[in-house]
Order: sequence, then C-alpha cells, then structure tokens
Amino acid sequence: MIIQNTNWNFPTSIWFGPGRIKELVKACEHLGIQNPLFVTDEVLINLDIVKSTTELLRSGGIKFNMYSNVQGNPTGSNVTEGVDFYNVNEHDGVIAFGGGSALDAAKTIALMSGQARSIWDFEDVGDNWSRADVNSIAPIIAIPTTAGTGSEVGRAAVILDEEACSKKIIFHPKMLPSLIISDPELTLGLPSNITAWTGMDALVHAMEAYCAPGYHPMADGIAIEAIRMITKNLPIAVADGQNLEARGQMLTASSMAAVAFQKGLGSIHSVAHQLGAIYNIQHGLVNSILLPYGLKQNTLAIEERMVHLSIVLGLDTPGTSTIINYILDLRNQLNIPHSLKEVDITSDRAKEVGEKAFKDPSTPTNAKPVNARDLENLFMAAFEGKLENL
Amino acid sequence: MIIQNTNWNFPTSIWFGPGRIKELVKACEHLGIQNPLFVTDEVLINLDIVKSTTELLRSGGIKFNMYSNVQGNPTGSNVTEGVDFYNVNEHDGVIAFGGGSALDAAKTIALMSGQARSIWDFEDVGDNWSRADVNSIAPIIAIPTTAGTGSEVGRAAVILDEEACSKKIIFHPKMLPSLIISDPELTLGLPSNITAWTGMDALVHAMEAYCAPGYHPMADGIAIEAIRMITKNLPIAVADGQNLEARGQMLTASSMAAVAFQKGLGSIHSVAHQLGAIYNIQHGLVNSILLPYGLKQNTLAIEERMVHLSIVLGLDTPGTSTIINYILDLRNQLNIPHSLKEVDITSDRAKEVGEKAFKDPSTPTNAKPVNARDLENLFMAAFEGKLENL
Ligand SMILES: [Fe+2]
Ligand SMILES: [Fe+2]
Repeated sequence: MIIQNTNWNFPTSIWFGPGRIKELVKACEHLGIQNPLFVTDEVLINLDIVKSTTELLRSGGIKFNMYSNVQGNPTGSNVTEGVDFYNVNEHDGVIAFGGGSALDAAKTIALMSGQARSIWDFEDVGDNWSRADVNSIAPIIAIPTTAGTGSEVGRAAVILDEEACSKKIIFHPKMLPSLIISDPELTLGLPSNITAWTGMDALVHAMEAYCAPGYHPMADGIAIEAIRMITKNLPIAVADGQNLEARGQMLTASSMAAVAFQKGLGSIHSVAHQLGAIYNIQHGLVNSILLPYGLKQNTLAIEERMVHLSIVLGLDTPGTSTIINYILDLRNQLNIPHSLKEVDITSDRAKEVGEKAFKDPSTPTNAKPVNARDLENLFMAAFEGKLENL
Repeated sequence: MIIQNTNWNFPTSIWFGPGRIKELVKACEHLGIQNPLFVTDEVLINLDIVKSTTELLRSGGIKFNMYSNVQGNPTGSNVTEGVDFYNVNEHDGVIAFGGGSALDAAKTIALMSGQARSIWDFEDVGDNWSRADVNSIAPIIAIPTTAGTGSEVGRAAVILDEEACSKKIIFHPKMLPSLIISDPELTLGLPSNITAWTGMDALVHAMEAYCAPGYHPMADGIAIEAIRMITKNLPIAVADGQNLEARGQMLTASSMAAVAFQKGLGSIHSVAHQLGAIYNIQHGLVNSILLPYGLKQNTLAIEERMVHLSIVLGLDTPGTSTIINYILDLRNQLNIPHSLKEVDITSDRAKEVGEKAFKDPSTPTNAKPVNARDLENLFMAAFEGKLENL
C-alpha cells in the first residue's frame, strides 16, 4: 500500500492516515481545546461516522456540544446561530466535521465567535479581513469526510447572504484550520455518484489552478501531481468504494488541489457557481460536465501546459485535444453526462449566467481573458453538448 | 519572461520578484518591526547588495544595527554574541540576509533572543523545541542571496557546537521566517562556481526528498517540479549570471526543494555533512560530486520513481541509469569534477566518514536502509570516481 500514516506540516498540520480519527482527543489536547463545538451538517448528524467520532470525545472525557443545523449551502443565519450557541456554551474551539458545507460553516463560526462586526464585513474584498480581531478567532480542527472541496486547507468559506440572495466569500488567514485529521476511512461510505462528483471537483480545481496565469511553480507542481493521482485513483474509488488506497490518494489529492488553487480558478468555476445558485445542482457534477468545454475554449492559452501534462500522464500526441479526449473517457467511466441539458438545467437564463459568471471572483484568473459573451458561449456549448461550438 | 512579481502564502508569506527588495521597509511595517537586527556574514558585509539594502532601511527611517560576525559554518558563539547584541540594543525583530550560514545564524538568534535555556537544549531531538518560550521568539524577515540551501523556508538551522566539535540541528516551528523577500536581482552577482555548487545542492535536496520513503505526495509534486526547473535553468544561470529569468527560476526552485525535503534527505547528505566537517569543503560541491553515486547505490529502491522522473524530463529509456547519465552530463556542463579525490579530499578517514554518516539525521530517510559500511562504500566510490563499484 502506498498510503501510510504521516504528519505533514504544510500548508498546516495534517495528520494523515487510515484510523487517525482515533487521535481526535489528542488533537484537542494539542491545541488546548477543552470544550469544543462540534459542527457538522443535517445529513451527517445521522450517520455512524459522526456517532463513532463523538463517542471518541465522550470516552476521552472531552465536554462538547453539537451544532448541525448547516444547510447544503450554508447561510449567514446558520453562522449566526452557531456563533450564539458557541458563546452561550463558552466553547474554546471548533471541530469542523464533514464536506465543504460543514467545513465552511464551521470555519466561519470560528472566525465570528469573538467579533463585534457583522459577518459581511469580512467578505473577501481588498483587505477587509484585517478588520477582524485576530486574537478572538477560535482554533479549528478540520476533519473532511469527502475528497473534493479541499475546504480543510483553505482560508475562506462560501456563505449564502439570504437577504442579498448571493453567495459571498468570507476570508481570513486564521480561518485556515490549525490541525487537520485526514482519515480516508471516513470516506469509505460515500456513495459512488458523490465520490465521482466530488472527485471531479478536485480534478477541476487542479486543472484550473495549473492553467491559471501567474508565476507559482510550487502550486503548479502540486497541481500536476494531484491531477496524476486523481486520474489514476478516482475510477478505482468509484468502482470500489471500499478501496482504502484509492480513497486515501483521493483525500490527499483533493487537499493538494485546494492548496494549488490559491493560484486561482477559471471560467469553469465561474459558470459552475452561477448554475449552482440558480439550479441547486451538485457543484462537482456541474464542474465535471463543464471541464472539457472550458479546456477547449482555453486551448490557445493552455496548449504548452497541456503538452507537458500529457507527457506526465504518459499520453501519446501531447496537447490540449489529447487531454480533452482523456477527460471525456474518464467522465464516461464515471457515468457523468456530456451535456448540462441532461441534468435538469435549462438554457433560458443563458445570458444572465454569462453576465453573472463574468463577475465571479474566478474569472480574472482564467487562463485567458474572457468576457460575459464567452462565458455564455461556454455555458451554451456545455448545455447542448457541442464541444465543436467552441 | 515567465517569472513575474507574485506573493505566495505557503509555506509562509513570500514576496517574489525582481526588485522586491525595495519593499523591505514595507515588510518591516507589515510585521511591526521598528528596530531590526540585520544579520549577515563576514563576506557579504562588504558587498554592494548589503550596502544598498541597508540604505533602503536608512532612507525609510528604520533604526537598525548590523551583526555580521557569522562564519561559514555558524557557531554557538556567533549566536550567543548576536543574541547579546540583540538584547543590549533592544531589537524587536531580525532581518536575515545572505546564504545558508547567515540565514541559519539569524534564525537561531531570533529563537534565542528571549530564552532562558541554552541553545543546545533546542537541538532537534524528540520534542525539545517545545521547551522554548514561544512568545519570546523574534519575528524574522529572510532575504536569501543564493539559490541553494533554502534555509529561508526552513524551521531549522545547523549550528556548530565548538566544545563538542559537532554540527547540531536547532529546530523550532517558529524559526520559519514570517516573511521572505525572494528577489533574484540579489543573486545576479554570484560567481559561476558558487552558482553551480549552490544550485546543485538544491537539486540534491529535491532528488533526495523525492526518493525518500514515506507518503508525502505534496512534497513529491513540489520536488519533481523543482528538479525540472533546476535542470533547465541551472546551466543557463551558470553560463550567463545576468540572466534574470534563470536566476529567478533557480531562486524559486531552491525554496521549493527545501520545502520538499521536509520529507527527508538521504545518504548523499549524510556523507556530505561529514566531509564538510572534516575537509571544510563547499557543501553543494561535495553533494554534486556524490549525487550520481548515491542514485546508483539506491537504484533498486528508486527505479519506479526514476522512470517517472525520466518521463517528466522527456528522456528516452526511462529509468535510474538514464537519470544518472543525465546528471553526469549536467555536471560536466557545470565543470564539476567526477571524483572527490579531485577536490582535496583524502581517503584515510573513510571508515570514520561511514560511521559518522550512519548517525547523521539524513540516514534514516534514505531511499533504502543503509549501514555504515554502505556509506563508506558510497564515499570510496565517489572518492575514486568509480560508479561501477556500486
Ligand atoms: Fe470547486
Ligand atoms: Fe544541502
């Protein structure tokens, strides 16, 4: 087996390995947390992995409370409610347990637990983050249960502003968890479709990060290795959910992809974010449908990088079209449809999608400059399933 | 030009780009440093880059003092003297300016400035580091002037214990500089032999890290990309010291290699450390002579990785022997000799070298387990220039 227990110390402390969840009490002690708030979501709260994890805290003599009222798209109210609960019970740290939604909500609760300002004052614009009282941010232990978003290694969270009807990015450097327990055993029970979609989200993170302009060779190196790991292991994890090796590689690769995308994302995420907001469709599924179209549209800007990537992946005839065909094959294996019209998306708001996508924070780091019309075309080609239209 | 100004935030804040040194005053303000101790070595103190850099501080109204009594192999006395000077002048931060020696000394001065214990109490053994009063460690701005050791991204320093006649590794997580100014213009004046030797040291870091056992794909991805960058750019930087692009790529790659070697080093460094202590010979030069021998001896353990590396580098007939030949070519281009006997090393202490190398902290992370005899053989083959003896 390639995977084995290891502790990493960048980008933060990561305790990786099957069964490492058993060290949760030690992790609390390590950070001096005596009374954590355990944050998870409405679905996970009923699963065995939450029960067995909280049982570890109980038997280890750690006093804690649960907050699980986190929705699929966590809202400002979820955060406010969690913060109130945190303060009433005088908690001294947050355990963030789950997929992207739970982790994002938990990280934002940790940020907001001791702030006088409103959550939206910390939207990721300029240096808003510097307004925060940095000493009042609660320490965070993150425990991812999906291999996808990589929120565990990120310094930001996506929170829905219900009043403004828009998703906002909340950012603070101290939202990076102080410690991550990365235990692939927690992901063994993920159904194969969720495994495929979240895994493809990680692949899109790595691909868009690698293609983003800007000089960041450390991110590039991490992205390339993540792409190699995902393309090799995702089909295995989807075909056999109990394969611990593939699950471990996917969990590591998804964190790596998220580290890499500090460099930036691109048009695929710009469009996916809008479709997610309008159609409430799984983020990774939308991303994976869009992926070959985004690459096609960026061909001229990414050709050199796709040549290198093809070589790394051992593909003949290196280049963008080879990578696109490789992705089409991979998507096929994972039973992911080729067009957005197959997943209950309609085309009547195409113009709006293009315009909103243009304002998305991922757009400026797309491999080449794109305008609203380009993004509308990207959406429409993916909607109709016509790669040749780009 | 590929390189461009960028700020990175892992493994720490890095301000990269030609001319970024001009932001030194801003860097001090960023960390709240008002009265820094500027630490550099006995050679650099007389060079223009130190004069122009300190002039930036002066014209920016930053009060500071210089401490430059750092030897090639920094000693415990250097550190103690620097700490006394730091405290007498009530400094509030350290600017570490130079190659590995200056950076290591400066980082250790920052650690020791507020500790009650002796420096050797923080030798990197077990969790000695946790004895330190973490709030008394001074903030560090690191400014590397060579592309080699990567000490700017490390949490440790090598300090000579004169009484015990041995080099010790001093470690604390807070010895990682809070901010790095990575400005390739500062490296333009490096003579070509020092450029070659320090660059090859970085290559050996990346190669040994990549070959080290243990599951650390993020380090592997960073190492592979660093190897690609170094093999491509080092010959250019050596042939044309004024090539800013190659200098920039080398400076970035050397930091990346040092990030990667948190995974571990191997037998090449184990032997090189001993030869450095006995013969006072440049560390990178010894390493680069040893490199093909170390790879040869590890062949069975590293073959799979060398196949992948060959593919990434676009070499035919992927495998360890192809990589060895590639390194021999590279070394030739850089005018680096093939044997240790060509650089004033003798073979009379071979047994001692093997025995001491066996106890070196790099030995346990060599690609395959080695004993003192193996390390003696490695040394002797490199001494005689006989790859076929391994
Ligand atoms: Fe995503
Ligand atoms: Fe070295």
